[in-house]
Amino acid sequence: MKKISRRSFLLNTGLAVGATTTAATLSSFVPIKSIKKYDGKKLNIALCGLGNYAGILADGFATSAYCNLAGIITGHPAKAEQWKKQYNIPDKNIYNYENFDTIAQNKDIDVVYVVLPNSMHKEYTIRAAQAGKHVICEKPMATSVEDCEAMIAACKKAGVQLAIGYRLHYEPYNLELKRLGQEKVFGPVRLIEASLGYNVTDANQWRLHKALSGGGPLMNVGIYCVQCSRYVTGEEPVAVTAQFGPVTNATLFTEVEASVMWQLEFPGGAVANCSSTYNCNVDRVFVSADQGQFELSPAISYGPFVGKTSNGPLNFPDINQQTAQLDGMGKLILANQPLPNHITGEEGLKDLKIMEAIYASARTGKKIGLV
Amino acid sequence: MKKISRRSFLLNTGLAVGATTTAATLSSFVPIKSIKKYDGKKLNIALCGLGNYAGILADGFATSAYCNLAGIITGHPAKAEQWKKQYNIPDKNIYNYENFDTIAQNKDIDVVYVVLPNSMHKEYTIRAAQAGKHVICEKPMATSVEDCEAMIAACKKAGVQLAIGYRLHYEPYNLELKRLGQEKVFGPVRLIEASLGYNVTDANQWRLHKALSGGGPLMNVGIYCVQCSRYVTGEEPVAVTAQFGPVTNATLFTEVEASVMWQLEFPGGAVANCSSTYNCNVDRVFVSADQGQFELSPAISYGPFVGKTSNGPLNFPDINQQTAQLDGMGKLILANQPLPNHITGEEGLKDLKIMEAIYASARTGKKIGLV
Repeated sequence: MKKISRRSFLLNTGLAVGATTTAATLSSFVPIKSIKKYDGKKLNIALCGLGNYAGILADGFATSAYCNLAGIITGHPAKAEQWKKQYNIPDKNIYNYENFDTIAQNKDIDVVYVVLPNSMHKEYTIRAAQAGKHVICEKPMATSVEDCEAMIAACKKAGVQLAIGYRLHYEPYNLELKRLGQEKVFGPVRLIEASLGYNVTDANQWRLHKALSGGGPLMNVGIYCVQCSRYVTGEEPVAVTAQFGPVTNATLFTEVEASVMWQLEFPGGAVANCSSTYNCNVDRVFVSADQGQFELSPAISYGPFVGKTSNGPLNFPDINQQTAQLDGMGKLILANQPLPNHITGEEGLKDLKIMEAIYASARTGKKIGLV
Repeated sequence: MKKISRRSFLLNTGLAVGATTTAATLSSFVPIKSIKKYDGKKLNIALCGLGNYAGILADGFATSAYCNLAGIITGHPAKAEQWKKQYNIPDKNIYNYENFDTIAQNKDIDVVYVVLPNSMHKEYTIRAAQAGKHVICEKPMATSVEDCEAMIAACKKAGVQLAIGYRLHYEPYNLELKRLGQEKVFGPVRLIEASLGYNVTDANQWRLHKALSGGGPLMNVGIYCVQCSRYVTGEEPVAVTAQFGPVTNATLFTEVEASVMWQLEFPGGAVANCSSTYNCNVDRVFVSADQGQFELSPAISYGPFVGKTSNGPLNFPDINQQTAQLDGMGKLILANQPLPNHITGEEGLKDLKIMEAIYASARTGKKIGLV
């Protein structure tokens, strides 16, 4: 199976740096060791869509304490056969897109994890909810605000939980960015620079086709920079300006932007100046506050991350982010406890509203107010 | 004398990191050792304006092989007395702003180095030229395109050379950025992120008064990011968009911007997303190209700098940038050779044209084309 490993993501970024050594305080991160002790019932999850990222999630399941890779939904019989063997998935838990709704009768599946191309998130989230399954949906939650709202409503109506695959909310370096920013450890945040991008070269990949992706690098990787600006400030932006970069490859970028830059204004006086691109590698977050700075580079990919503050290097464990996310979400769903706001459908909707404003600003050249 | 040392500039930025170790190729940098061998006639320079930066330049003269700190022009008799003693300056080479023009008769002064507040650059450059002296003028060259043109014309008419104090054109890490970008060592450049800023807290400093400074952080520190984007690409930008940040301190920022972000489009397909600020510390250049990245952080202050590329760390000597600039310019002026384009008045004019467009875009919210 062809898949992008966390190591190859890192190598792609080209700027790997040695590990740091000085200790730093952990905030809400739960070490994997303590999770390993759990030996109760596991949450049974079916992956819906078996593309690259499903393969990375499968690696995450391998070390998960709370979640089983219990089923799959795929339109490709050959893929079904391969996954069945590789992950020991029983035939009764294997679905295609036609018989998917009969999953309602399958008591051995608790959750459907939607990993399809972006524009299909809405349909399969709603169908999963109507089948009575909790849903984890990859980011971006959908390709429009309208779709996000329909998904939230469907899950509410069905009485199931809806989580968005925001893995960085379980990653210790990013949790530390959030803590340093929101607790104003270096005073009020003034400037955030967050950039994520990589070189896209395959013209056939769905991410370049707007009907499937909803947009280019902003939808795929820029969303992390939007998220990061919000969790560092702990605020919602009040206005956005944005600019498309040039079409650097006329064959690849016929439907979606090659790159986009944007600026978010926050009510507390911070600005975020961000960039996302499909024409080069970049992976960095830098924050400057009144009395100091903090930064990660790499920052947003699958790790390992390197970080420092004005006080010295950061030193957190290099974790499997997918495992951490699955366990963090799985534990709560198993216990029938509500998910924290920052990983729910409402959070995904907030990002979509901002991304729609970014696109509107880049298209019109006008500043867009956000309420 | 109160002055900002290169070390305190670094400490202000808060993110000092240890030196790197791997060797890298030098481009046009001339090691200080080889300069030291020179023992011919030195160029006699008079500093016009004795503010903070004049003090830093005085340190540069102390280790200069080609230039003497030979005279001063100041409106403060107490400063004149202090400098006279500290730098052993003869009375006949000490001027005030009233008798300055009599410098024409002083054969012991070859060059006037204008270090006055920005809006005074024009008058004193023109008066120095009319007195038959070569001129080195600090950046920004002036506060308007019109003033730059008048200064260039006056120096041309007088038959004297006009250099702008672009110290980074003599700094090995920045010369390496220029080489890596212009020689396309990692392929065509796609994204440049350049940011420079520091915390301004003294409401009385001239830089906060528009009549003296011509503008806020863009004029003072943002100009380096504009310069850097141009020397990394080796191209002139064709369009600019820009955004002012919020007024983060209503007492300090009554006349000039607290911060400004801008985006430059280059004809070869690169974009530069830049930031300059007076409300927090930042000092960084990051460049991503088709096949790799290169970056400095700190990047633009007085050093020492830390840099790396996709191939590993950069390792250049930590030099006194003022000495390197004085010697680089001084050697050519002594030999009556023309200065290279990238440090002339024409170069200063190019930056001013871009900075005027940045301000126009930030004020109007419109993209501004540059021809």
